[in-house]
Amino acid sequence: MSTKHDIRTARLLKWLQDAYAMEQEAETMMKAMASRIEHYPALAARIAQHVQETRNQAQTLRECIHALGGSVPTAKGLVASVGAALHAAGNSMMEDEVVKGIGLSFGFENTEIATYRALILAAERAGATDIAAVCAQILQEEQAMAGWLEQHQDSLVGAFLDREETPGAESKR
Amino acid sequence: MSTKHDIRTARLLKWLQDAYAMEQEAETMMKAMASRIEHYPALAARIAQHVQETRNQAQTLRECIHALGGSVPTAKGLVASVGAALHAAGNSMMEDEVVKGIGLSFGFENTEIATYRALILAAERAGATDIAAVCAQILQEEQAMAGWLEQHQDSLVGAFLDREETPGAESKR
Repeated sequence: MSTKHDIRTARLLKWLQDAYAMEQEAETMMKAMASRIEHYPALAARIAQHVQETRNQAQTLRECIHALGGSVPTAKGLVASVGAALHAAGNSMMEDEVVKGIGLSFGFENTEIATYRALILAAERAGATDIAAVCAQILQEEQAMAGWLEQHQDSLVGAFLDREETPGAESKR
Repeated sequence: MSTKHDIRTARLLKWLQDAYAMEQEAETMMKAMASRIEHYPALAARIAQHVQETRNQAQTLRECIHALGGSVPTAKGLVASVGAALHAAGNSMMEDEVVKGIGLSFGFENTEIATYRALILAAERAGATDIAAVCAQILQEEQAMAGWLEQHQDSLVGAFLDREETPGAESKR
């Protein structure tokens, strides 16, 4: 029979595995986005920085998963990555790709924020204070990325609109 | 030859049409989510309220689109709705459906927030102050929904975790 501690640890492990798959998806999506940007260098640089953070987060999550005796979800990560690649490809067909990318990234970062907030509660409940601390650190990185997008959106959208009405300038990406 | 005013009005119209399609997707997703919730009545009630707000927003957007001489994008809306229905169906297979739904809704609301912020800039640039005011009103509703989810997430996730470790209680939805 499962004890409460077993149930809590199983829940924590499952959410860590889901978060790992989500970070794989995030990396695929952001790498595709950053590689295509040509005329918005500040955005490309911030995304590139967050791709590196995302890789480190995935490594940290992998260690937490192993510490709980679990395995890293390769199949689910693969499906998520294909979905993310398709998503990025769909975006690339839009004539306002950069603006759509900002909106979708801002949404995605906020889903990540909700994910780590839930993970912190689950970790605390399972008595895994070290994992709760790791998730709080990742949460801060996601909040910083969402905050950057929120703060720079107006100037990036303004730059897009400027380019769109400038003969000979490419605005799309 | 297109004047700057033509370019600005065309951009505003395109983004209004995209927002209309997005709100159709939102309505499909939220209706599916609200109808499935059984054990989290405060969440179901808030989503039902936002479904009604979303219907009104779609109506308002339709009027703005017609005022600019454009037509409402039925085909794109249909594709978006099918996508949203599939998304909702995928969620319903997860054993932590309610928690995943909160995270995805929070992300979606934030994508909507970014969308209306961009629309306000485009409307102001096109000299359409009435449309800018409409978008600012919708923006407030999206911010209120995102704020509600942010504020209630911890207690909803806590309720989910409580139910999951209570014999005989269903936690999923």
